[in-house]
Amino acid sequence: MTVDDLERAQTVYEPLTQSVRRLIDTTIRTEVDTDTLTRAQGLIDEAARLLSGEVMPGSFGVRHTTDGRSFAWGNLAVGLRNPIAPPLLIHQDPTGSTRCDVDLGAAYEGPPGCVHGGMCALILDHMLGATAHRPGEPAFTGTITFRYLQPTRLGRLHATAWVDHHDRGKTYAIGHLADANGVTVEAEGVFIRPRPTTTHG
Amino acid sequence: MTVDDLERAQTVYEPLTQSVRRLIDTTIRTEVDTDTLTRAQGLIDEAARLLSGEVMPGSFGVRHTTDGRSFAWGNLAVGLRNPIAPPLLIHQDPTGSTRCDVDLGAAYEGPPGCVHGGMCALILDHMLGATAHRPGEPAFTGTITFRYLQPTRLGRLHATAWVDHHDRGKTYAIGHLADANGVTVEAEGVFIRPRPTTTHG
Repeated sequence: MTVDDLERAQTVYEPLTQSVRRLIDTTIRTEVDTDTLTRAQGLIDEAARLLSGEVMPGSFGVRHTTDGRSFAWGNLAVGLRNPIAPPLLIHQDPTGSTRCDVDLGAAYEGPPGCVHGGMCALILDHMLGATAHRPGEPAFTGTITFRYLQPTRLGRLHATAWVDHHDRGKTYAIGHLADANGVTVEAEGVFIRPRPTTTHG
Repeated sequence: MTVDDLERAQTVYEPLTQSVRRLIDTTIRTEVDTDTLTRAQGLIDEAARLLSGEVMPGSFGVRHTTDGRSFAWGNLAVGLRNPIAPPLLIHQDPTGSTRCDVDLGAAYEGPPGCVHGGMCALILDHMLGATAHRPGEPAFTGTITFRYLQPTRLGRLHATAWVDHHDRGKTYAIGHLADANGVTVEAEGVFIRPRPTTTHG
């Protein structure tokens, strides 16, 4: 697949995924009568039947364009084709720090009116991983600790992460999540870079 | 709402939510042509339009039946009406330990063929919280640490959590997630029980 093919595919899949994201929100919040629910379910089942006419085996994975650009469209946090993904749109600055703004609605609820603590962890896990990762040198999560300072309200959130230091093959990354009231969750992670495989001896 | 009303509502909303869960999986994995994608999207948009004829403001929250039973149908981990929730079906034994089996497909992917590390955290966050919680005495997450031992493969998973000990208003809980290859992620959490409000002095 060339980069042009990728961009063409994006214009088809992105609106479809956005439609399913809207449907997820409405499925949770609808208060229409049972007959209307039944009609809607019929349409959803028919859509799924059409889409399942031809499906890839397994999951999307990570794919590459002919010029080496990678895309993980099925990814739970950032996947362009994954309706569960908000998706996170992560900006990385030249120093490798990452930041993103994201709006989370009813589908990400834990305590009433608040983001599920596990969703806060998911966002920060991905952000810390992204800052620890270097092209061609993947970093695997060793441990992450989350400190919950206050509830995170549903709505507009801001997340940021950066590398604190490297030490003997390990990368120590830090980040936090904030809502309109300030920082709500802090994260510290240790990422491990596998040593190059020894092929002799 | 009585318990009978709740059970009637469940028979309507559960199949609708399951239909949307199937649609999410198919949206990621479909390989049908563009015309078919467009037709499917039209059906999805029409379903969302029907369901949005009447919607609750905000999010679902936690509600109660007339006899005091609570239900959090919008919850990201366990919500019966939340298509993002797998959902986790958590069993609690008389000692308060929790366990659940869950099948995770393409929609929960992080590394190729594996569960997103943030989803592992989300599951364990919820399981540890459920074991630390006591009826009428909510426990809030203070900190949680996750240790990633090996990748978690997509497919059937088993999670379990239990309270290790209590100390001065804090509950220390432990848990782990396992796939067919054994334990993949370990978690340790500290939960805080707010002190009863002092109304005098």
